[in-house]
Amino acid sequence: MPRNAFYAQSGGVTAVINASAAGVIETARKHSKQIGKVYAGRNGVIGALTEDLIDTSKESAAAIRALTQTPGGAFGSARYKLKSIDKNRREYERLVEVFKAHDIGYFFLNGGNDSADTCLKVSQIAQALGYPLTAVHVPKTVDNDLPITDCCPGFGSVAKYVATSMLEAGFDVESMARTSTKVFIMEVMGRNAGWITAATGLARSKAGQAPHLLLFPEIAFDEEAFLAAVKLNVEKYGYCAVGVSEGLRDKDGRFLAESGLKDAFGHSQLGGVAPRIAELVRGRLGLKHHWAVADYLQRSARHIASKTDLEQSYAVGKAAVEYALKGMNAVMPTIVRTSSKPYRWKIGVANLSDVANVEKKMPRDFITPDGFHITTRCRNYLTPLIVGEAFPKFENGLPRYVRLKNTAVRRKTRTDFTL
Amino acid sequence: MPRNAFYAQSGGVTAVINASAAGVIETARKHSKQIGKVYAGRNGVIGALTEDLIDTSKESAAAIRALTQTPGGAFGSARYKLKSIDKNRREYERLVEVFKAHDIGYFFLNGGNDSADTCLKVSQIAQALGYPLTAVHVPKTVDNDLPITDCCPGFGSVAKYVATSMLEAGFDVESMARTSTKVFIMEVMGRNAGWITAATGLARSKAGQAPHLLLFPEIAFDEEAFLAAVKLNVEKYGYCAVGVSEGLRDKDGRFLAESGLKDAFGHSQLGGVAPRIAELVRGRLGLKHHWAVADYLQRSARHIASKTDLEQSYAVGKAAVEYALKGMNAVMPTIVRTSSKPYRWKIGVANLSDVANVEKKMPRDFITPDGFHITTRCRNYLTPLIVGEAFPKFENGLPRYVRLKNTAVRRKTRTDFTL
Repeated sequence: MPRNAFYAQSGGVTAVINASAAGVIETARKHSKQIGKVYAGRNGVIGALTEDLIDTSKESAAAIRALTQTPGGAFGSARYKLKSIDKNRREYERLVEVFKAHDIGYFFLNGGNDSADTCLKVSQIAQALGYPLTAVHVPKTVDNDLPITDCCPGFGSVAKYVATSMLEAGFDVESMARTSTKVFIMEVMGRNAGWITAATGLARSKAGQAPHLLLFPEIAFDEEAFLAAVKLNVEKYGYCAVGVSEGLRDKDGRFLAESGLKDAFGHSQLGGVAPRIAELVRGRLGLKHHWAVADYLQRSARHIASKTDLEQSYAVGKAAVEYALKGMNAVMPTIVRTSSKPYRWKIGVANLSDVANVEKKMPRDFITPDGFHITTRCRNYLTPLIVGEAFPKFENGLPRYVRLKNTAVRRKTRTDFTL
Repeated sequence: MPRNAFYAQSGGVTAVINASAAGVIETARKHSKQIGKVYAGRNGVIGALTEDLIDTSKESAAAIRALTQTPGGAFGSARYKLKSIDKNRREYERLVEVFKAHDIGYFFLNGGNDSADTCLKVSQIAQALGYPLTAVHVPKTVDNDLPITDCCPGFGSVAKYVATSMLEAGFDVESMARTSTKVFIMEVMGRNAGWITAATGLARSKAGQAPHLLLFPEIAFDEEAFLAAVKLNVEKYGYCAVGVSEGLRDKDGRFLAESGLKDAFGHSQLGGVAPRIAELVRGRLGLKHHWAVADYLQRSARHIASKTDLEQSYAVGKAAVEYALKGMNAVMPTIVRTSSKPYRWKIGVANLSDVANVEKKMPRDFITPDGFHITTRCRNYLTPLIVGEAFPKFENGLPRYVRLKNTAVRRKTRTDFTL
């Protein structure tokens, strides 16, 4: 009998994480001699701990295909970080208990930095407990901050969304600046790494166009330099459009927009740096402003997903299964750029021990010397990632997204588990 | 010699106002025996006052066609309201002076309520001064608040954008609510009329889906009822998504976004009703939240424009020229709904005296009795307006929007005019 697989989505979802799910499930279905069923964790790894598994074999081929057109996490994702093995061995033992009960031989975790670490630990504990398990991490993060891989599935789509939004808002503001808004501020995601902020810069094809200024988390906010630059752009071009990262910090490393709440990982919840910057512009320069906070809109915007990103997201899911079938353990498929012009890529591989908890920030030479924009080198890196459209089907004016049946697998362990 | 036409964009721009411009210009070009050149006002009616006219005949047919694919105001728009004739006769006389200098016999103003009033006044003053002028208003407003016309060009596209965004964000929040955000709040435009807020409601196809609650400017905000409803939805469905109008008011008619409250840190709130509602949810219910403010993104999102809206926007521009050629003065083309299922529409006409300064709010029976959602009647009204996609061409991953040459017409008056 072929052993079963477990697949879970972890951390913040993206417009295309379900394409990775489709890559995993469709590829597993093609190898039915080696992989039995694919069980998905309801709400990510929590589904494994609580033995709340979803039987993906109950879903039609069409439904699984439709996942490539659907944003969000089809099985539920979770912000739930397993503690270190020393601190909470019980969680890891429980995972193995559930896996054993359902004869799970393949573990696929679809997430970012934190979950790469979780995936590695699960692989280690299984080994330590003598339970045969092949664990492969499927990369996903809008933040684009995983190391080794050239880019991260999920990023290209948010990049395309924010660049398109800035381009469009720029046309709007430019056409009304004479009598109305002079300064427009758009806040985007990216707590520590400025990749998404950088992507808004793609909207500008020549000097004078939006965005005029970018505020990166990698560059300490210099209020005076920023205000001087805003003033200069308004004088020169009539308006100034600004892209700002939610993770903008002052010179002492404090977030400009800290809201005081922390999530399960101990990260501060951010939000609202745009209104703060706007208030500064009004207070110090007396200029009329508007601001936007794209928030979840940016990472769920499947309607404007990047075709390149979609294909890569599917490919890493597919490769994860193929690697697992080859017995490759504690690894992660990567995107390897083999050529920039024309853009070509292939799937590579990284060891999870080289990936876990390493955060790839923007190289300094991707940011202009003044700290306020992207360089040509950065533009050349980013552009191919947003190329291509992959519009979903529409019905009655709205994208037709799928909701799966998500049928529960009958429980086999007799123990309950409290998170 | 045929007389020339003047066209100006007025007030907040939309994703499709340039389609109306294309409708005016292309139709005028087809009637070259009756209409000479189409001059556009640079920055709207300001361009007429300052004699800063754009010669649209310098633009290629392809460039004018590309306007149908380009958001913003291609000639510049302005928030500039002419005072009453009594209070500033000088402005009206100046308009006639400039029109006379350039032999302008047709006046097309493309805007909302305020500009319908301006258009009417211009027509009246021309008549009073014995200057032969045919003035036709071309309707445009994302607010959908013009009377007589079934809907307003520009609205269908913002409606499609906000409904799509809420649908997508809903999928995101739903998939993570177990361990993350429980309440999501999206702020949309519409200061006095809740049409855009209502459109976010289209994202919900059955109970339990986002948006769970809508906060309309027409319904005084009831904090207790709202918080109870949020709590109920979170308990029942695991999360609660809220669409809120920027114009939400308390029972005394004060805008919530202007009420001068302070956040948890003692900072003055910086505008934005979404963060204010979010703070309330956190403070009173202790629930994790996220919020988005779409701001200009919603009204410039040409990439997700409604095909129906695009066609109607073009049609009112075309009809405006045809009406003018028939000598119809001080009128506005309207959209007439001749059938709802299947949706059919035609172009009608309204007298500007019936349109100017009248604001069409949501009928009470478009809002559910509890005030928190839209009725089936409202849904039936809204749905056809967002139907159809009209994706722009893309290049290197971004929509290819056009910038016109906007060549200035040589000035003929010797007087300068100070605004």
